[in-house]
Amino acid sequence: MPKISSKGNKMPPSPIRKLVPYAEGAKKRGINVIHLNIGQPDIKTPKLALDAVRNAEIEVLAYSRTEGSEAYRVKISRYYSNHDISVSSDDIVVTTGGSEALSFVMGTLLDAGDEILIPEPFYANYNGFAVANGVTVVPIISSIATNFALPPITEFDKKITEKTKAILICNPGNPTGYLYTHEEIQQLADLVKKNDLFLIADEVYREFTYDGKTHHSILREPGLEEHAIVIDSVSKRYSMCGARIGCVISKNADVIATVIKFAQARLSPPTLAQIASEAALDTPQSYFEEVIEEYVSRRDLLVAELEKIKGIKIARPSGAFYCVAELPVEDADHFAQWLLEHFEVDGETVMVAPGAGFYASPEHGKRQIRIAYVLEKSVLKRAVAILRAGLLQYSGA
Amino acid sequence: MPKISSKGNKMPPSPIRKLVPYAEGAKKRGINVIHLNIGQPDIKTPKLALDAVRNAEIEVLAYSRTEGSEAYRVKISRYYSNHDISVSSDDIVVTTGGSEALSFVMGTLLDAGDEILIPEPFYANYNGFAVANGVTVVPIISSIATNFALPPITEFDKKITEKTKAILICNPGNPTGYLYTHEEIQQLADLVKKNDLFLIADEVYREFTYDGKTHHSILREPGLEEHAIVIDSVSKRYSMCGARIGCVISKNADVIATVIKFAQARLSPPTLAQIASEAALDTPQSYFEEVIEEYVSRRDLLVAELEKIKGIKIARPSGAFYCVAELPVEDADHFAQWLLEHFEVDGETVMVAPGAGFYASPEHGKRQIRIAYVLEKSVLKRAVAILRAGLLQYSGA
Repeated sequence: MPKISSKGNKMPPSPIRKLVPYAEGAKKRGINVIHLNIGQPDIKTPKLALDAVRNAEIEVLAYSRTEGSEAYRVKISRYYSNHDISVSSDDIVVTTGGSEALSFVMGTLLDAGDEILIPEPFYANYNGFAVANGVTVVPIISSIATNFALPPITEFDKKITEKTKAILICNPGNPTGYLYTHEEIQQLADLVKKNDLFLIADEVYREFTYDGKTHHSILREPGLEEHAIVIDSVSKRYSMCGARIGCVISKNADVIATVIKFAQARLSPPTLAQIASEAALDTPQSYFEEVIEEYVSRRDLLVAELEKIKGIKIARPSGAFYCVAELPVEDADHFAQWLLEHFEVDGETVMVAPGAGFYASPEHGKRQIRIAYVLEKSVLKRAVAILRAGLLQYSGA
Repeated sequence: MPKISSKGNKMPPSPIRKLVPYAEGAKKRGINVIHLNIGQPDIKTPKLALDAVRNAEIEVLAYSRTEGSEAYRVKISRYYSNHDISVSSDDIVVTTGGSEALSFVMGTLLDAGDEILIPEPFYANYNGFAVANGVTVVPIISSIATNFALPPITEFDKKITEKTKAILICNPGNPTGYLYTHEEIQQLADLVKKNDLFLIADEVYREFTYDGKTHHSILREPGLEEHAIVIDSVSKRYSMCGARIGCVISKNADVIATVIKFAQARLSPPTLAQIASEAALDTPQSYFEEVIEEYVSRRDLLVAELEKIKGIKIARPSGAFYCVAELPVEDADHFAQWLLEHFEVDGETVMVAPGAGFYASPEHGKRQIRIAYVLEKSVLKRAVAILRAGLLQYSGA
C-alpha cells in the first residue's frame, strides 16, 4: 500500500482537533457547549458587503486577475492611505485569506531548511504553513508576566543563524492580545536591517486596539521598505471569515513579483468574496467604533470574571479579541477534555483552546488556555463561572 | 538587502505572462485581441447557482467546516453516485479550487525531492505546484501524432525510481483534449498497484467528452481504492471559474486525514462560493447536453478551419475544450509575440498560448500552441483566418 509523505505526517493537527469528539459527545448528551475556543466573531458582517454580492449582475462567474481586481487593489491602497500607510495598488496581491498570503510569503522568502523567528505563543497555523513549506520555526519565548510583550531583542539576536531569513510577528497578537509598542516595532526594524532579514507582520487585527492605544504598522517604518511584508485579511475586520480574502502588501518589488508567481499557479482569488470585500471597504468608521466598544466591554468583563479565579494568571489584552490565561492546573489540555467529558453546570459546559498548541515548545503553554471573547457578555459571564466551578471540582477531584 | 528564496526564483511564470505586455500594447493601438489563450468559458453560469447566493440569508459570513460543509459533501457524493462512482462524504475534502486540491495532495504524498510522473504536455500549473512543494516532475512524452494518447506504459516503467511516489494524469486533458480509454486507465492502474504508487487524476473536465466517448474515472477501477485520488472542480463544469471551489476525493483514509490537516491550516474554503457550488449540483442534464453540443460544434469548426493551414498538425480533441496544434514555424512563442506586435487583419489579431509552457522539456513544444475553444463560432472562425494569414506573412517575412 502506498504511503503518505513524512511532511504529511508532520503536519500539526489543529490544537483543538483532539477535543472535538469530546465536544460532540457532550452535545449528544444534551449539554450546551459554550465555545470559547473559536475566533469566529458573532458580530454582524456589514450589510453593504453582503448586499454588494446580492446585487452583483453576474452572468459568468469568471476568474478575477491573479493579483486581485485592479479596482479592489486601488481601494485597498486608499484604505491604507487613511491609516497613514502609503502603498500603491502594485504593492498589493489579493489572496485567499491571510492564510494563503502567509503561505505564499513563506515560499517567497524561505527555502526548505531555512529558519523563521517567531515570538511564542503564536497563531497555531503558522506551524502548519511552516511544515508545508519545509521551514523551521525558531520560537522566541515571551512571558505571560509581561502580557506577552516583545522578548528582549537580544533573545532574537542570539537565535539568528546563516539560515535565518525572516521574523514573523502578529500585531495585535493571536493568541496573546498583545499590541506592540512603537519602540518594540523600531527594535525589530533595526534588527532586520542590521541582519538583512525580512520582517513579516500579520496585522489582521489592526483595527482592534483598546485603551486609547494605537497600532504601529511595520509599513510606516522609514527605511524598512525592502524588508517589510504585511499579511492582511478582511476576516476579522468586517466579521467575514468565510469570505477568504486577504492580501500581501510590500514595497519590495521582487517580493511582490514572486508572490504573484505563486498566485498564478492557483489562478485567482474567489470572485464573489472579492465583490463583498471591495464593498466592505465603504464600511463607516462608526461600525468599528461600535464593535470596538463591544469588544472592550467584553474584555473588561472577561478579565474581571477571570480574576475571581484563585491562582489564575491573566495576560491583559490590549488588542484583538483573545485572552491567554494560566490556570492552576498541571495540564490545561487534560482539564479542557475533562470539562467536556465530566462537567456541567445546569446543562452547560465550556470548550477552551489549550495553550500548548500555540507554542513550538508546547511545555511552556501546558497550563495555559486561549479564550476568544467573541460571544455576548451574558454568555461570557456564564462561561467563566462554569470554568471557575470546574476548576474547583477538578482540583478537588 | 534581503533576498527571496531559490524556490521563489524557480517558480515558473505563467506560460502566457511574457505575452501579456504585447497584448496590452496591441489593445493600446486600438487593435481587438481575440483571446484563444484563456480557458475561461464564455458559457453562462447556471442561474440557480448564482440565485442561491443572491437569496442566501446571511448575517455573519462565517467560516465553513475545514473539509467543506456536510450538506455540500453529501450532495457531491450523490453526484458521483449518479456517475457510477461510489464515494461517501467522508471521502471528500472541499478545497479552494482544483488548484488547492492538487497542492494539498502533492504535500500529502510527496516529500521534497520526491518524483511524480506526468505525461507531457500537461497543464502548466502542475509545474508551479511541484516547485512550491519541492517536488520533481518527471515527464513522459506523448505525441501529437497519436492525439497525445497515453505513452506506452513501458515508458512509465523505465522512469520509476525509489523516489517515485505518484503518477498524475489529466483526463480529459488540458492542453491536449485527449480522453483516455478504459484500457489506458487499466494499464495505469496495474502499474501503480505493481509499484505501490498513488494515481492522481485531474478529472475537472469529466463532463466534456465528445463523439459518444465515455469518461473512465480512476475511482471506478476495482482494487485501486488505496491508490486513487481524484482532483475535481466546479470551475469548468458549471462555468464558474471564479468560485474557486474544488475537492479531493479518495477512499484512502490516511490520504483524506492528511489532506484535512493541510486544509485546517487555511481554516475553510470560501463560504459564498460553496453556496453557489452546492446549488449548481441541481443543474439539469439538459444544461450539459446543450453545452456539449456547443463545444462539439466549436471543435468541429475549429479543426476544419485549422486544417486549411498548410503544414499544420492538429491533435483532434475528444474532450475538454482545448486543441493543440503544431505550426509550420520554428518558434511558436516568437510567432505569438509577432502576431500581437506586428500583425492585424481589419483591426484584429489573436493571442495564443505557446506550447512550450506545457512541457517540462520545453523544446518538445516549441512549434506548438494551445487554443481554447471557449469563444463563439463566428469569432473562432475569424481568429483562425487571422492565424492563417499571419502564418503566411510571418513565413514570407
